[in-house]
Amino acid sequence: MCRWLAYSGTPILLENILYKPAHSLIDQSLHSKLGVETTNGDGFGVGWYAPDVDNPGVMRDTTPAWSNRNLQELAGHVRSSMFFAHIRASTGTAVQQTNCHPFRHGRWMWMHNGAITDFHEIRRDLALAVDPELFLDIEGSTDSEMMFFLALTFGLEEDPPGAVARMAGLVERTGHRHGVEFPLQMTVAVTDGRRLWAFRYSSQGASRSLYYSTRVDTLRALHPEVAFLSEVSDDTRLIVSEPPGDLPGAWNEVPESSWGVVQPGANDDLLTFTPAAA
Amino acid sequence: MCRWLAYSGTPILLENILYKPAHSLIDQSLHSKLGVETTNGDGFGVGWYAPDVDNPGVMRDTTPAWSNRNLQELAGHVRSSMFFAHIRASTGTAVQQTNCHPFRHGRWMWMHNGAITDFHEIRRDLALAVDPELFLDIEGSTDSEMMFFLALTFGLEEDPPGAVARMAGLVERTGHRHGVEFPLQMTVAVTDGRRLWAFRYSSQGASRSLYYSTRVDTLRALHPEVAFLSEVSDDTRLIVSEPPGDLPGAWNEVPESSWGVVQPGANDDLLTFTPAAA
Amino acid sequence: MCRWLAYSGTPILLENILYKPAHSLIDQSLHSKLGVETTNGDGFGVGWYAPDVDNPGVMRDTTPAWSNRNLQELAGHVRSSMFFAHIRASTGTAVQQTNCHPFRHGRWMWMHNGAITDFHEIRRDLALAVDPELFLDIEGSTDSEMMFFLALTFGLEEDPPGAVARMAGLVERTGHRHGVEFPLQMTVAVTDGRRLWAFRYSSQGASRSLYYSTRVDTLRALHPEVAFLSEVSDDTRLIVSEPPGDLPGAWNEVPESSWGVVQPGANDDLLTFTPAAA
Amino acid sequence: MCRWLAYSGTPILLENILYKPAHSLIDQSLHSKLGVETTNGDGFGVGWYAPDVDNPGVMRDTTPAWSNRNLQELAGHVRSSMFFAHIRASTGTAVQQTNCHPFRHGRWMWMHNGAITDFHEIRRDLALAVDPELFLDIEGSTDSEMMFFLALTFGLEEDPPGAVARMAGLVERTGHRHGVEFPLQMTVAVTDGRRLWAFRYSSQGASRSLYYSTRVDTLRALHPEVAFLSEVSDDTRLIVSEPPGDLPGAWNEVPESSWGVVQPGANDDLLTFTPAAA
Repeated sequence: MCRWLAYSGTPILLENILYKPAHSLIDQSLHSKLGVETTNGDGFGVGWYAPDVDNPGVMRDTTPAWSNRNLQELAGHVRSSMFFAHIRASTGTAVQQTNCHPFRHGRWMWMHNGAITDFHEIRRDLALAVDPELFLDIEGSTDSEMMFFLALTFGLEEDPPGAVARMAGLVERTGHRHGVEFPLQMTVAVTDGRRLWAFRYSSQGASRSLYYSTRVDTLRALHPEVAFLSEVSDDTRLIVSEPPGDLPGAWNEVPESSWGVVQPGANDDLLTFTPAAA
Repeated sequence: MCRWLAYSGTPILLENILYKPAHSLIDQSLHSKLGVETTNGDGFGVGWYAPDVDNPGVMRDTTPAWSNRNLQELAGHVRSSMFFAHIRASTGTAVQQTNCHPFRHGRWMWMHNGAITDFHEIRRDLALAVDPELFLDIEGSTDSEMMFFLALTFGLEEDPPGAVARMAGLVERTGHRHGVEFPLQMTVAVTDGRRLWAFRYSSQGASRSLYYSTRVDTLRALHPEVAFLSEVSDDTRLIVSEPPGDLPGAWNEVPESSWGVVQPGANDDLLTFTPAAA
Repeated sequence: MCRWLAYSGTPILLENILYKPAHSLIDQSLHSKLGVETTNGDGFGVGWYAPDVDNPGVMRDTTPAWSNRNLQELAGHVRSSMFFAHIRASTGTAVQQTNCHPFRHGRWMWMHNGAITDFHEIRRDLALAVDPELFLDIEGSTDSEMMFFLALTFGLEEDPPGAVARMAGLVERTGHRHGVEFPLQMTVAVTDGRRLWAFRYSSQGASRSLYYSTRVDTLRALHPEVAFLSEVSDDTRLIVSEPPGDLPGAWNEVPESSWGVVQPGANDDLLTFTPAAA
Repeated sequence: MCRWLAYSGTPILLENILYKPAHSLIDQSLHSKLGVETTNGDGFGVGWYAPDVDNPGVMRDTTPAWSNRNLQELAGHVRSSMFFAHIRASTGTAVQQTNCHPFRHGRWMWMHNGAITDFHEIRRDLALAVDPELFLDIEGSTDSEMMFFLALTFGLEEDPPGAVARMAGLVERTGHRHGVEFPLQMTVAVTDGRRLWAFRYSSQGASRSLYYSTRVDTLRALHPEVAFLSEVSDDTRLIVSEPPGDLPGAWNEVPESSWGVVQPGANDDLLTFTPAAA
């Protein structure tokens, strides 16, 4: 339903990633190739960490990304070493700022592509499972924000993979109790500004697309002529719903039911993701 | 925090009420005199019944009413015999369409000026009291919409005064349980398109202002020169947070802790409003 | 670049035309089939005549039509016997309300699909040709509004076909003077609330698509089972960039370089359109 | 009609100036004290220079500044050594992004408080005086943007005070020719990212308010306890329509008909401003 992109690496102007590639995320807002919807025009958001500010800045708006001038201005004048960008195709919930990704809680950001099946029917049950203190901070009406607050309830800040697994488990159990066969479909990115986790999972085993970029040193050897690759560090990484650009060897699919983390010194291991039992 | 206006009577272009009077509601969006806030620029809404359509139309937007051209166009080209208009001054909740009044459920509309004290703290408890089937239709994050859905839960469609009294009772009990001395402050209008109820109440006995217009036949006798009065029926009525215009004898204060109904054949009786015990 | 629709006939709720057909205009905002752009998400507008009000009401907004709730509310609660609707795909000019169609001047409305080639370059020359009194009322920055004000300058209110021909002639001469081979590409609808004119023309002879509906009495004989056809008068007409629905025999292409008028007693004659010499 | 603020000095988070002072610019959007209008809710803009990017970034929106979350996010996460901020109270021209200040041309920014009297009447004459090449880049419909483009036409990039004087002279002559007694009323700020010029002038000699801050070293001696003063350089300066905060000795009125420049090594000289004869 949506497309997203997460960047971690050498600080750069956001426009280098969001606007400049041939099939950039902004271009995907108008013409997505891999998405369920080819148009992702129901709002967008970008979240970035600035030097010496703990919490990320988040700019979200309800207009299409492709024509939003403020997004273009921000992207052309702000540098960051860790940022998220998301373009939305609503499946019915209101097009409003509080429903745009990324969502933020303290220094944490979360964004999502996918859906909780029949969310409207099980929303109340899920809401009851959110920590009452955290519940107060839910502002919008999407399944994505609810998933974030469930993960926070289940310990996201201490153990992201475990918390996401517990959230997924609860969603599946709740859905099954309401007679939904395949309750969850998700690709999720979450960060605290230093590390970046990504998840791909669906109850049906037919998840939305997700890709990660090849290590820059490997890419640089393959494409010594690409100037951009000489400007960013070896461990600069992108995780995307749909690859921008068309550089051979640059993109690798995240397998079904798996997760990984981008952090200093991490290798490319992708681990199996399994929703947690109660 | 807000200003509102409810009209019932001879079908007229909305602009006759919303724009033309000297101190009109639209003027009040920029320069309110009686409100807690002098500016009500955090969005607006208008709801109206059209001939042969059961449910009211509702146009809401997040920009200030004073500069909204679409509101002006609508008001200049739509006639109605029953309409609501509301201008908002947010006290912190997001400025978004789903937080603008009036709220609608089927053929019912609801709007509110006031606040539930410390709503943020007791929101979850109130949400749990909403009928699970109705809960699904809550779209925004305001206390006003929550009050509407509580009233719907408590039988608004069968017994409006009783349902509002039960809602108010629940809010007060919940607030008291959280240590809030004066939990509720409200002026509310609610309609099904045929009858119009208005309520003025606050836990502290110091409610926001509320006025109702004098019967048109009385006014016409007082002011035979006012053309507008000859164009509307005797039982045409306005209920307002703050009187527009400056016609002597036109406005009467709704007393503290009272409610009334506007309907064919009704007189001017105002009854005492008391929140219902559990 | 855009899609539009003009309705003249029995007063109906706008939603019957804008939302209900299978491939409705609102659906075309997300998935156009015949347009240069498949997405028309850069704003929209609807203009309608109300009983006993001379000038049409015009509601325009910069968000995509497909997700705009106010448009849906208006369409579900307003009836009109003559209305325009337009969805926009900007080719670079700002996405703002004053650039959305239809444009209005007094009781006249105008909307357009197409472009003046290299408009940016010849905009100043065209602006100088606008009547200085009229110039004051230009609010936006589109070629479409400029074409409207040139046509008004050249007598639109007295002789629509002549004024449009003079406008087209001026645009072509001005373009040629600036070295543009094919300066004009247009389908235009214009109305005074009683009659409706439509034009299809391009300098290159390769105009954007335009269709008009078959007379209702003919259609009714072909499709006696279609309820809607029994609810509207014989001379109810639609002119559209792209046919909604899929009723066989319902749509006829407007030929290249032609114009026609919809008015009581008019037949289906389409006349040749030729830009006027200086 | 508007309020603005220009900052030049030590790079700081914008929020330190825009949000934190007691009577900040954002607060003035809701409650201005010195303005003609107490509410400046018809849009806003902020423009800032980022390291290693020649042209300033400009974020503008049509909603009130006081409730705009994106502005707050930007201000809390972007540092700059030179930035402009503007809050708008429209006097009739459309509330749209292209009418919000600051205006930008290459590396130059311009913002304005005031009005050209009867601008609507003389707009066309002024437009004709704009360099045809520059004319193409006018996007909005305000007098303020027209003044900017006239100043650019008259050599702003080489000689700002001279160009502004020639612009003012043209506006006054054009106004007088149309029978306007006092054609111009302005406070203007303009910058190329390194130097900052400010102007205060009105034909009537009764200009809108304008203030500049006292040198930081002087202020620091007066108020050694104010932490903020120890964090910024001696030559950090603010020029404002209306002083934020309430620090005694911090603010100095810019005299009628005068101008000044903020640049490294500049002293506090304010020179007389006189519109240039033809």
